[in-house]
Amino acid sequence: MGLEFALYRLPFAVVGVPLTANPFPMQIESHWLQQQIDTLALISEEPAPVVTRILFSEADLRARQHVKQLCRDLQLTVTEDVVGNIFARWPGADPELPAIATGSHIDAIPNAGRYDGVVGVLGALAAIRALRASDFNPLRSIELIVFTSEEPTRFGIGCLGSRLMSGALNPEQALTLTDIDGTSLRRWLEKIYGTEPDLSSAAKSKAYAGFIELHIEQGPLLDRAGIEIGVVESIAAPATLRVQITGEGGHAGAVLMPDRHDALLAGAEIALAVERAARESQSRDAVATTGVFRIQPGAVNSVPFRTDLEIDVRDTNLAARDAALEKIRAEITTICHRRGVSAATVVLNQDAPAACDAALTKTLENSAAKLGLSSLRMVSRAYHDALFMAQISPTAMIFIPCRNGVSHRPDEYASPEAITAGTRLLADVLRELAAEA
Amino acid sequence: MGLEFALYRLPFAVVGVPLTANPFPMQIESHWLQQQIDTLALISEEPAPVVTRILFSEADLRARQHVKQLCRDLQLTVTEDVVGNIFARWPGADPELPAIATGSHIDAIPNAGRYDGVVGVLGALAAIRALRASDFNPLRSIELIVFTSEEPTRFGIGCLGSRLMSGALNPEQALTLTDIDGTSLRRWLEKIYGTEPDLSSAAKSKAYAGFIELHIEQGPLLDRAGIEIGVVESIAAPATLRVQITGEGGHAGAVLMPDRHDALLAGAEIALAVERAARESQSRDAVATTGVFRIQPGAVNSVPFRTDLEIDVRDTNLAARDAALEKIRAEITTICHRRGVSAATVVLNQDAPAACDAALTKTLENSAAKLGLSSLRMVSRAYHDALFMAQISPTAMIFIPCRNGVSHRPDEYASPEAITAGTRLLADVLRELAAEA
Repeated sequence: MGLEFALYRLPFAVVGVPLTANPFPMQIESHWLQQQIDTLALISEEPAPVVTRILFSEADLRARQHVKQLCRDLQLTVTEDVVGNIFARWPGADPELPAIATGSHIDAIPNAGRYDGVVGVLGALAAIRALRASDFNPLRSIELIVFTSEEPTRFGIGCLGSRLMSGALNPEQALTLTDIDGTSLRRWLEKIYGTEPDLSSAAKSKAYAGFIELHIEQGPLLDRAGIEIGVVESIAAPATLRVQITGEGGHAGAVLMPDRHDALLAGAEIALAVERAARESQSRDAVATTGVFRIQPGAVNSVPFRTDLEIDVRDTNLAARDAALEKIRAEITTICHRRGVSAATVVLNQDAPAACDAALTKTLENSAAKLGLSSLRMVSRAYHDALFMAQISPTAMIFIPCRNGVSHRPDEYASPEAITAGTRLLADVLRELAAEA
Repeated sequence: MGLEFALYRLPFAVVGVPLTANPFPMQIESHWLQQQIDTLALISEEPAPVVTRILFSEADLRARQHVKQLCRDLQLTVTEDVVGNIFARWPGADPELPAIATGSHIDAIPNAGRYDGVVGVLGALAAIRALRASDFNPLRSIELIVFTSEEPTRFGIGCLGSRLMSGALNPEQALTLTDIDGTSLRRWLEKIYGTEPDLSSAAKSKAYAGFIELHIEQGPLLDRAGIEIGVVESIAAPATLRVQITGEGGHAGAVLMPDRHDALLAGAEIALAVERAARESQSRDAVATTGVFRIQPGAVNSVPFRTDLEIDVRDTNLAARDAALEKIRAEITTICHRRGVSAATVVLNQDAPAACDAALTKTLENSAAKLGLSSLRMVSRAYHDALFMAQISPTAMIFIPCRNGVSHRPDEYASPEAITAGTRLLADVLRELAAEA
């Protein structure tokens, strides 16, 4: 462990002694970064410590304004594309060269915490502040991207912004995505931007020489092992099913049991089958979750006539993931047939895993070693915008530990030391990549 | 079948030839009654044909105003008690005598139809119109009661108004009932009436010489058998459980299956156990329903940490009902223990069945025969305000057929002929009872 890194272990360390080999002395303002994380956490649909910022909610829109202002305060050039992806650019000496990009998201699922996504956005700003303070002048432009709707809460499909940037999602189909209230993405964009949206304009090929995302691990491995940095080699393959079950309602007192076609009970059996498909998978990394389960009419004295489910299936092994998915679909058919209810099943996404760029991954690893940070190569079982950025740019990810691996909960926690270490590594690699011709 | 009754089989029959034995010629204005039913159905939280009028919603409050105005238009004296029960009185020649009461409710569960409850309120008004038009002068007062919250949608407990009238619900406990938003009955009543509510003032003992409720059957028996009138002998015993399951949330990608404590999956197993308890009951009338099932956070990529269930268990046999309830409670304990989640279970109500008054029941049966209406003695498996009115007054119920037994759905339907026949019987019995000294 180098001398400089050791200083970042001190609480509120704001001074650092540069390594003598380093031509640009650089230090992360840990205190400033923590304050920014705390401030952004207050912009939420629910009281602290809960963070809820669902896409296009008042809180999400306010958080976007807040982050854009932070970028402008740093003299970055802020632009926004048709789907709300935010780009904040520090122009390089040669602005014609493809830029080095970094970024993540600020939307948050209901009842979430303050670090998921946010560390990659505010950490990037802290990295840029440190680079500026070190009098570094980039040759390539450095661009922070704040992606729209990494979380799938509103439309049931995650990474909306990066899917459209990479071309992984058909722009016309994207406009027809609808939320639980039946409002389409088209209507939302018209409402927010006041114009008919042309989503094809969001596509960006060959725009970037590299993309690096800083993120909390959302798993327990780094925390358990006491390792400071995870260097992601690949990102697990997620798939999402939406199932709409229609049975028959009626009075809970009057409809006798043999006459029932209860949509909730079919849904209950399906949720248990989803669990079974993961538990019985040959792959030890298989996970499957029914995360959305809504019934109608939802009255204690009424037989439920409708259930809406959303099911998430992931694996690091694509074949095993697809086998689990097929098993679940077969079970849905069997269960609904036996109960005399109908089921409409839609695959919202069935993505392939992404491999991170070998050279970038090596750069991260070397830089971590140079800074005296312990690191571990690993797989991301959560998915990220990096999954889609990998389709249009060399991509890598930096993970930092979060306490007990907890995420998507208000008690999600990453220590200031862990965040500073990850940010320091990001700054170092941005400097190296942006300095190259 | 008498001549007079036969005329009511004609569509829009507004004239009738009285039975010669009848001293007061009386006819039900079927067309007026249908118009009133259609008009009230338009006061709903959702577009037609759906009727949703949840207690204290804007639609419920508007429907109350509407019905009170209809009562005033009929020169009835309208009063309202502390919990919103509405009383519309036609004073008798001897106003000191206990009155004859009739009535039902106008609140409606989400996604309901237009007849449940409403037929007993508007039918009573049509009966009073017919009695007035026949120049009948009652000796006893006749009182229409519109009960507050027969449906349990807001507070998870049905028959709020009649429970408080009968003393079956402790007034202080009632004030602490809370809805899904955490708002108590006390707060709601303060908001609506502007004063600190004293619910003990709602109790009414010995106020009525008799109570008769007109209602659609909400089951298929009358419709299947082609019988015009059901004379209810007893009302099934309902019980309601509220279960709050707390597990552990987390990221759907990152928490491995063996580490999970998924509150949804525990709820799914419980819902299936509820079904099993009814199906395996020795009683052929056992029904059990999980009608409320809400999860948190309800995001596709998040393991559910909380499930709220409401369970309805009924039987005509009290011992069998209580045995099913105990079986369900035992299963809840077993399931939650196995899954490492906690469960808080509350019995919201566990009512005994009610027997209807033998003399009143006989009066209904005789009157139906006199009017040429076919009738059948039966049990009500749905529960009604009559269940609690039976604790403070001789009580009986008139059922009319509804198509295929369907209720609590927008396609709930009772024919104008069926409604007119039930109303005719109600008017006839009110006349007989109010004329007695």
